[in-house]
Amino acid sequence: VPVETIAWQGGHAGHVRLIEQTLLPLRHEVLEVKSVPAMVDAIKRLAVRGAPAIGVAAAFGVVLGAQGRTGRTAREVLDSALAAADELARSRPTAVNLFWALERMRAAGRRAAERGPDGDAVFAALFDESAAIHREDREICRRIGQFGAELLRDGQTVLTHCNAGGLATADYGTALAPIYVASEQKKRIAVYADETRPLLQGARLTAWELLQAGIECTLITDGMAGRVMFEGKIDAVFVGADRIARNGDVCNKIGTYSVAVLARENGVPFYCCAPLSTFDPTLADGSQIPIEERAPEEVTEGFGRRTAPPGVRVYNPAFDVTPARLVSGIVTEVGVIEAPTTAKVEAALRAGGRSA
Amino acid sequence: VPVETIAWQGGHAGHVRLIEQTLLPLRHEVLEVKSVPAMVDAIKRLAVRGAPAIGVAAAFGVVLGAQGRTGRTAREVLDSALAAADELARSRPTAVNLFWALERMRAAGRRAAERGPDGDAVFAALFDESAAIHREDREICRRIGQFGAELLRDGQTVLTHCNAGGLATADYGTALAPIYVASEQKKRIAVYADETRPLLQGARLTAWELLQAGIECTLITDGMAGRVMFEGKIDAVFVGADRIARNGDVCNKIGTYSVAVLARENGVPFYCCAPLSTFDPTLADGSQIPIEERAPEEVTEGFGRRTAPPGVRVYNPAFDVTPARLVSGIVTEVGVIEAPTTAKVEAALRAGGRSA
Repeated sequence: VPVETIAWQGGHAGHVRLIEQTLLPLRHEVLEVKSVPAMVDAIKRLAVRGAPAIGVAAAFGVVLGAQGRTGRTAREVLDSALAAADELARSRPTAVNLFWALERMRAAGRRAAERGPDGDAVFAALFDESAAIHREDREICRRIGQFGAELLRDGQTVLTHCNAGGLATADYGTALAPIYVASEQKKRIAVYADETRPLLQGARLTAWELLQAGIECTLITDGMAGRVMFEGKIDAVFVGADRIARNGDVCNKIGTYSVAVLARENGVPFYCCAPLSTFDPTLADGSQIPIEERAPEEVTEGFGRRTAPPGVRVYNPAFDVTPARLVSGIVTEVGVIEAPTTAKVEAALRAGGRSA
Repeated sequence: VPVETIAWQGGHAGHVRLIEQTLLPLRHEVLEVKSVPAMVDAIKRLAVRGAPAIGVAAAFGVVLGAQGRTGRTAREVLDSALAAADELARSRPTAVNLFWALERMRAAGRRAAERGPDGDAVFAALFDESAAIHREDREICRRIGQFGAELLRDGQTVLTHCNAGGLATADYGTALAPIYVASEQKKRIAVYADETRPLLQGARLTAWELLQAGIECTLITDGMAGRVMFEGKIDAVFVGADRIARNGDVCNKIGTYSVAVLARENGVPFYCCAPLSTFDPTLADGSQIPIEERAPEEVTEGFGRRTAPPGVRVYNPAFDVTPARLVSGIVTEVGVIEAPTTAKVEAALRAGGRSA
C-alpha cells in the first residue's frame, strides 16, 4: 500500500482515520473522524477526496451516524443510518461513487431491518457493508492496476492529471494503479504530473505519493501538458474519473478534457481508470452530469495570498466532461473498455454484476 | 492609454520609469531604472515583460549604457552603446523584439559614428532612435487594435492567455488592443483570462488592466480554457507572441499551444496579435526558436510558499510553439495575415518595409 488514505479504527464503537490531504505535501497528519458532520466537513474541505475514497468515506460516515447504545430497535438504527446518508449525500455533487456507496449502505440497512427487530443486528450489517466496500475498493484497485499495466511497456512515460492515486482510493488508486503494478513488474515507468490548478492535487498529492513509492515524477503546470506531448515525451495519459455516463463520456477534474484533446492531437492514447462504481448508468451521456462550482477564492487566493485583483469575476468549475470519442479506453476491474460506446459500457456493467 | 508601462523620464541625462510588474495586482509601484545592469535585472525578473515592451526596454537600456560626460568621441559613445547592447542581449533568449530593438540601436549608433567624430551626436542619434522605437510601438499597437477590432462584433467574448496587453507594450498591447479599440467603438466585449501559470500574468496583469479599463473580465485557471470553449462561451481567442517564424509558427507563453488546439477542436478562431518586429525571418519554422527554461521554484513555490514535495523534478519551459496550421490569423500593423504561410508572411514583412 503506498499510503493508508482511509481506514476504520477499532470495532463497532470505533471511528475513521484518514490522511488530512489539505496539509500535504508539507505535513502528513491523520484526521480522526468521529461524527457525520465531521465527515461531511472532511469531504467538503477535500481532506478526503477522489471518487473511490469518497465512496468509502461516505460508507464509514453512515456507520458513524448509526452508532449508539446497544439495545435499540432496528427502526431506530435504520433511521439514524438513513439520516446520516441524506446528510452525507449533500457534501459534494459530482462523484457518483458517493451516491453509489450510500445506496449500498441504505440497502444493507433496510435488508437487515426487514430480517428482524434487533437494532444491533442492523448496525452489524451496516458495519460489515462498509468494511466490504472498503475491502472491495482495494481489490478493485489491484485489478485496475493489473489490466492497466498491460498497456505499459518498460521505459515508457505516462502523463496524469490531478490525483487518482492511492490518496484518491483506499489503496493503489485508479490512474496510478497501473504504474504501481507495472513498477512491481520491474517495468521502469516515469510520470509527468500536471500540477492541477486550482487546488494543486498533482503537485501536492500525486508528486508526493509517487516520490514516496520511488517512482520518477516530473511536475509541470497544466499549460505545459500540451508542450510535453508535442515534444514526444509522453507515451500514454492515465486519468481517473468522478462519474462516467452510459456512453463512456468521462467527468473528471477540470483540465482533463484539455489533456484528452491534446492527447488526440498528438497521437497519444488517453486512458481513464475507474471502478464500475464510477459509472452512472442512469445518464445517457455526460451532458447531464452535475458539475460542482467551487469558491472563487480557490482561484484568486489559492496559495495563501491574493494573486488576482479585487473585484475580478471568477469561473471555477471543479470538473469537466471528456467526450467518449476522445477516450482510447476505460480501465475497469473487469477489463479495458476500448473505444467506449453505450453497448460496450453496458456489457462491462453486466460483467461486473451491475444492472445497466 | 490603459497604463503607462514604460517611459523615458527627462532628457538626455534622464532615466527609465517602468511599472514593477512583479508586484501587481496588489501593489502598483514604479521602478526607476538608471543603469544597464538594473535594466538587465528588470528584464530577467520580469519587472518588465511582454515582447514589445522588452524591445522598448532594451532600446532605452542602450541609451542608459551610452550616457556619460559630454565631449566624448563618437567611438567612445558607440563602444559604450555596443557593450550595453551585448549585455542586454543576454537577458532573455526567446522574445525576438529584444534582438530586433538592439539591432536597430546598434545600426543607429554606427550610422551616426560614420557621419563624424562627435560623440554627443552619436548619443543624440541613439536617444532619438529609442524614442522612435517607443513611439512606433504605440502607433503599431493602435493599428493592430484597429485591424483586430474588425474581427470582433458587439456582445462577443474573447479568451486570452498570459498578458499581451498594455503592460506588455508601451501602449494598448497586442492581443488586448483589439478589445480596447472595439470598446472605444462601443462594442461590448467580455474577456475570459487564463491565469497563466506559473507566473500568473493573466490573473495578476491581464485581469488588473482590464478592470482598470472597465472591461468585463472573468478569471479562469489554464485547465478551464477547454471547458469554457466546450460550453460555447468563447467567440474568439486572441494571444500575443514572443517570436514568429517565417512560416507563421507562433512562439508564445507556455500554454498557448494548448489553447490553440482546443480552439481548433471547438471551432473557435485563434488569432495571434503581434507587430512585424516579432517576426524572425531567419527561421524557416518554429522548431528552431530557442525556448527559455526558467527556475523550478516558479512551479514549486510560485506563490510565496512551497506547494510541491521537496525533491520533485520540475520541467519549466516558459514558451511553446503553436504550428501555423492552428492559427486563424496573425494581426499585424499592416493587416491580418489569414491562415499564415511563408509566402503570406514574407509579403506582410515586405509591406511593412522589412526584408524577408
